[in-house]
This record gives sequence, structure tokens and C-alpha cells, in this order.
Amino acid sequence: MKRDIDNLMERRGIDVAIVEGVIKGNATMFYMVNGAQISHATVIKKRGEEPVLICGTMEREEAAASGLKTVDSSKYDYMKLLKEADGDRLKAQVAYYTKIFEEFGVKGKVAFYGEVNMSAWWVFLNALQKAMPDIEITGEFAENLFVRARATKEPYEIDRIREMGRRTCEVVQHVVDFIKSHRVEGETFMKADGTPLLLADCKAEIRMALSARNIIEEVGTIFALGRDAGIPHSRGKESDVMMTGKTLVFDIFPQEAGGGYFFDMTRTFVFGEASPEILEAYAQLSEIHDKVTASLKMGEKAGVYQTMVCDAMEANGHETPRTNPQVTDGYVHSLGHGIGLNVHESPRLWDGPGNTDVLEPGHVFTVEPGIYYPSKGWGMRIEDVYYVHEDGTIENLTNFPRDLVVEL
Amino acid sequence: MKRDIDNLMERRGIDVAIVEGVIKGNATMFYMVNGAQISHATVIKKRGEEPVLICGTMEREEAAASGLKTVDSSKYDYMKLLKEADGDRLKAQVAYYTKIFEEFGVKGKVAFYGEVNMSAWWVFLNALQKAMPDIEITGEFAENLFVRARATKEPYEIDRIREMGRRTCEVVQHVVDFIKSHRVEGETFMKADGTPLLLADCKAEIRMALSARNIIEEVGTIFALGRDAGIPHSRGKESDVMMTGKTLVFDIFPQEAGGGYFFDMTRTFVFGEASPEILEAYAQLSEIHDKVTASLKMGEKAGVYQTMVCDAMEANGHETPRTNPQVTDGYVHSLGHGIGLNVHESPRLWDGPGNTDVLEPGHVFTVEPGIYYPSKGWGMRIEDVYYVHEDGTIENLTNFPRDLVVEL
Repeated sequence: MKRDIDNLMERRGIDVAIVEGVIKGNATMFYMVNGAQISHATVIKKRGEEPVLICGTMEREEAAASGLKTVDSSKYDYMKLLKEADGDRLKAQVAYYTKIFEEFGVKGKVAFYGEVNMSAWWVFLNALQKAMPDIEITGEFAENLFVRARATKEPYEIDRIREMGRRTCEVVQHVVDFIKSHRVEGETFMKADGTPLLLADCKAEIRMALSARNIIEEVGTIFALGRDAGIPHSRGKESDVMMTGKTLVFDIFPQEAGGGYFFDMTRTFVFGEASPEILEAYAQLSEIHDKVTASLKMGEKAGVYQTMVCDAMEANGHETPRTNPQVTDGYVHSLGHGIGLNVHESPRLWDGPGNTDVLEPGHVFTVEPGIYYPSKGWGMRIEDVYYVHEDGTIENLTNFPRDLVVEL
Repeated sequence: MKRDIDNLMERRGIDVAIVEGVIKGNATMFYMVNGAQISHATVIKKRGEEPVLICGTMEREEAAASGLKTVDSSKYDYMKLLKEADGDRLKAQVAYYTKIFEEFGVKGKVAFYGEVNMSAWWVFLNALQKAMPDIEITGEFAENLFVRARATKEPYEIDRIREMGRRTCEVVQHVVDFIKSHRVEGETFMKADGTPLLLADCKAEIRMALSARNIIEEVGTIFALGRDAGIPHSRGKESDVMMTGKTLVFDIFPQEAGGGYFFDMTRTFVFGEASPEILEAYAQLSEIHDKVTASLKMGEKAGVYQTMVCDAMEANGHETPRTNPQVTDGYVHSLGHGIGLNVHESPRLWDGPGNTDVLEPGHVFTVEPGIYYPSKGWGMRIEDVYYVHEDGTIENLTNFPRDLVVEL
């Protein structure tokens, strides 16, 4: 939570945190400016002080919407500095930051954050370090302090994720109904014009259903049929014909329009009849999902649940990343991840070395076991989002049935 | 163009270029993997050799769609390295890259590119440099070689931008028709339910019209009325009531779904009657736009056109960034920018120090003069996209009329 930032800075020995970059696709910036729709900015957060937002004149109104103290960047007159540097942009940028750092008394260990162009920033931070030998430019490699703060959500964030969940479930139902509304010839769904219903048509329907609810596909939805359903990250082939009897993995992770909170859920459907092999595997998967989610407990290590799922999968005869690091048939990934302003964030439900994540109040994360047999032409996954309340209650934020078979 | 990359590497003394990060919002990665829908990857481009894509097992099919030589990252067994490093992710990542660099014979001056998390990469590149003292880790500050290569478009890119232009113009017309379809009471557009038409309703219509054409708002469209039209980056207030007689700045810059090419155009509309003051300013603006675009010439310095517009604006009594660096009333920004996989790229139509950009064959850029008087409650901008053909012909890719007044 935001109120943890000062403590985290202190524990990590950071005197000043600087957040840089555009707002879009830059969760740290979005978080710090409270989602204000500026295009790019600098946020300076000194330990124990309120953050300050430095932003261009043209975006003064958007900047004000952040609720932060704002400073108009024209004050530092980059253009004048660029002229003085004879058009040398690196020199001018070093001069610009030197001015800002002097004004704000930036000293000590100064950590930079944000999604930026690495090539330019590697050169720039090296030049800045050289120009300001009294400060120590630093960063954080693994879970940085903002990622850590963001992992535990405040009530206003839960409200937004919950609302995203509601809209996302509506979209899933809408698309199921859309497919069902088509008549079937043999094993193929047919459009009114007599041509087969394509996966591309379903994807277009997903986009329209999302847009109608003012939520966006930040990256393409996973909507994969048959063999492709067996490859967890396959987005599905647009030219595929929608057919009965095949597993459809529908993994949808939309974001608030304007770049805000995500939701993330997966359902697997078979329209019409499912084969005994698929039915049996789905029964195993449901049971494993139920078992692991029933055992979620505040204070428990997040990695424990991956171990639990690997145990159960192996007991059912499926390979896992534990038995084969390059596994492609069986259970092939980790169990889940936090969601928020990124679709993947802390905690990690994964038993790999060094993962010390523990389920904490405020955590919002997915649980998404799956069974994949691309060689047999199918795959399946069930994914819900869970929230750890202050009192340890675990709430499923995904209000959607789990039925595999959609009767026609 | 892509074929320039080896030459650019040579001229800039770069032996190996490494492109990192996710694909979404990372134009360099998108460019190098030909838009393949992988989530994240590493591309290694040695000077004089074909690029190689390193990507996870789960995304092997998407990776193959890039057409590049691909290597499955599981080969380097990060998990084993993480175990050996006792869960220290930084140490494991250094070991992982060391392995890759050894296999590919990465030597000499190694430049990193891509949009990444700065905090982690600053720490990582410093650690990697320490671990591999024989290579020189570097970057490029200003226009890096990929930005430079991307600035001149190949025919397949022009086809995609042209098609984006066609769809974008359709959306603009659709939204104008949508507004016109409402009845007017006094100066207010009214919905069928008897409540006023809000700017939010128009924005929803924009989103749906974009979705229907499989293009996306990468960041929010500028749709700003009256006073807000006078603030170039104002996105418009959702609660504003749509009214006649006010300037509406409609600046739309959608992207291909999945993260590809952009278009970018602006029209200013007044529904019903425009005041003499607004009509006069718009006549000036149209004349300036015509004059500057008629003079576009291959081989000319791009900054010349900003100078030309400033001259004309000042002759009409408007302040410019030249007369006042903090100008908010008058002509307040630069004239244009390249578009492609980013909405702002090279060339820059701007007369600032150090801008040596020259109009070249393959360049695709906007020309977008505007006049802004937020204090008087109005603003206006006209923006079209131009393409410099191989033979120097300048083509306007924006097929949309410029009429200010929309008759009701």
C-alpha cells in the first residue's frame, strides 16, 4: 500500500525515489500519479516527504488531477539548456536534472524507477552519475519497493478490480451466448451467411463486448481451440473454424481503459459433447482447483500451493515442471500471480528458489492450474482471482460458473 | 529501413545490438520480431549477421511466426541457474546472459535497446558489465539506430499506415454523423431519453467505432470542447455537454490492434454557427497549413517548416514558442513528428537546437499547426499525415475534408 513506501525506502536504504517515463504501460507511474492522464512525467519522492510531480505546461490540467504537488517543467527551461549545450541532448538533460536535483535537495542514494527506453537511460544515468559524484544512483533488481507496495491493495483498488471482474464475467457470458446463437452443421458452427464461424469472428465479438464496457485488451485475449488450447500462451489462430467437441481455452485479462487495473480469468468450454478423456481430466482439474483454493491461508508461503498442485498432478499421472523443466504435456507452468496495475505482479504462486512471498492481507492473485496435451489436441485451465481480506478471509472475486460443457 | 541496420551499427561502432523486453509498447521489439505476438523476448543482432530470437517454450509458435531464427530459452535453464545461485535472481540472470553471450560469441561494444524496467536493468547491466569486463556495455542517447532505421518506411509499412488512415477517417466521419444525429435544444445536443449528449457518450462511440475496425486507442483520444480545445493535450472532460458554436478538437491516433502501426490526424469542428473570431482564425490556420504542406520537399531540413509556421503565426499576431517559451495563447507547440510503430518518432518538424533531421524518402510524418486561446474559450488544430515517396513526391495519406463548420 502507498503508506508503506516510506518504510520500504528506509529498510532498503533509499533516500530518494525517482519515477520516470510515460504513464501508459508504466504501472509505477500510474500508481504514483493516481492514474492522471498525463503522457509522461517525473515524480520525485524523498523519504518522509510527499511526492512531487514535474510535468509539461501542455498537461497542467491532467497533472493537477493527480492530487500531487505539481511543478511545471518549463521552469527548468530545457530549451535554454539545449541551446547552451549546442544541441547536445545528453548534455542538456544532465543539466536539466542537475537543476531539478539542486532545487529539491536530492542527495544520498537515489533510486530510479519506471518503464523507459533502456538504451537512452543507460547512457543518461551513467552521465548523470559522473556529473553528480556526490549522489549514488541506484535501482532495485528483483521486487522493487513500488512493486512491493502495490502488491497489497487498498479498498479503493479492490473496488476497481471487483468491478473489472464483474465486467469481465459479463464479456465471457456474452461470447458464450454469441457462439451458442449459431446453428451447428456436423461439428461446425455456421454463420447466417452460410460460412463457418471463425475464431476471428469470436475475437471481434470479444473486442466489441469489451469496448461496450469501457475496458480494453491490453494484449490479445487467449482464445484457443483444440490443440492450441494445449499451448498455454497460444492466442488462438484467427482462421480456425469454431467446432463442437473441442476444448476452448478462454483466458481474458482486460484492463481499465486509460491503463488501470486488470482482471484475469480463464474458463475452458466444450460446446456440445466432450470426450471421456477430456471429461476425466477436467474432473481432476476441478478437484485440484477446489482443493488448493480451499487451503489458501493468510501467512502461508505462496510457493506451497504450487507444490500442492504438482503433487496432485503427478498423482494423476501428469508431468510437471518439477519432473521435467521443459514439460509441454501435463501441468506446464506456475500456479498463479498477483494482479493489479500489471497483469503479472506479486505475490508469485510458485515454488522456485528464492520465492519468499507469503499471502498477506490486501493480496489479489490468480489461481490457475491447467492440464495440457497439445499432442492429443486439447488443453484446459481454470483461473479465478482471490483476495485476502484484512481478517484473513479469502474471497473469490470471479463470479462465473465452472461448467466445462456448454449444451447446445 | 531494416536493411540500414548493419550500416548504422558500423557507423556507430556497435558490434552487437540486444533488444529486450515485452513486445507491447516496445516498438523496437515489435519491429525486430515482425509483430509476432510473443509476450517478451531477447533479440540478438550481431553486425553483419541475421538476428536471433530467444523466447520461452510456451511461446514457441508465436516466436516461429516472426520468421526469425529462434532459440528456446529453456536451453539455458534459468531455473537451474537460480538454484545454483540460491534463489538470488540477479546472480542467476547474470549467469544466464553469460551463457547466452558465450554461445553467440557476443564481444566488443554491446548496445542494449528496448523499453524495460529501468530500476532492474540499471542494476543488472552494471552487474553484467562487472562480470564480463571484456565487453563494453553501451547504449545510445538520442536517436538510436533502430529509431533511425524505423523512420524510413518500407512499402509494406506504408500499406499498413495507409490502411490505418482509411479506418481512422471512417471513425472521424462516423462520430461526426453520430453527433449530428441528435436534435438540438438551444445550443445543446440532446439524447432520445431527453438528457444532454455528453462528451463521454461521444468517447464511447469513438471506442466502439475503433473496435469495429479492429484498431485501438493506445492512449485516450483527444476530444476537447471549447476552452479545453485550447489546451493541446487536454483529452476533454467526460462530463462536458456537447454544444453548438464551440470548437471541438478531435485528435485521434489509433494503433493496429495487437500493437502495430499508428495513424494520427486532427480535425476541428464547430457544429452549427462559428463566431467571426473563430472563422477568421481558422482561415489563417488553413492558409498556413496549405502553405507549409505545399512547400514540403525531400532533402529539406525538417526544422525549416516550424520556422515557416512561426513566421506566419507571428505575422498574424499570435505568440509562438519562439517569442515566448512558456506560451499558452497562440501557437504553442512544434509542427509535427514522424509516426510509425510509435505515435511520435523521427523526423521532428521542430527548429530547436541540434535537430538535424532532413526529409527523406520513406519518412511518414504529421503536419499539425494549431491556434489556441483557452482564455477566450477556443482552440483549433489541423493535422494530416504525409509520406515522402522514393522519387520525392509528397503524398497526403489523410483523406478527409477540412471544413470547420458542420451544418445542422
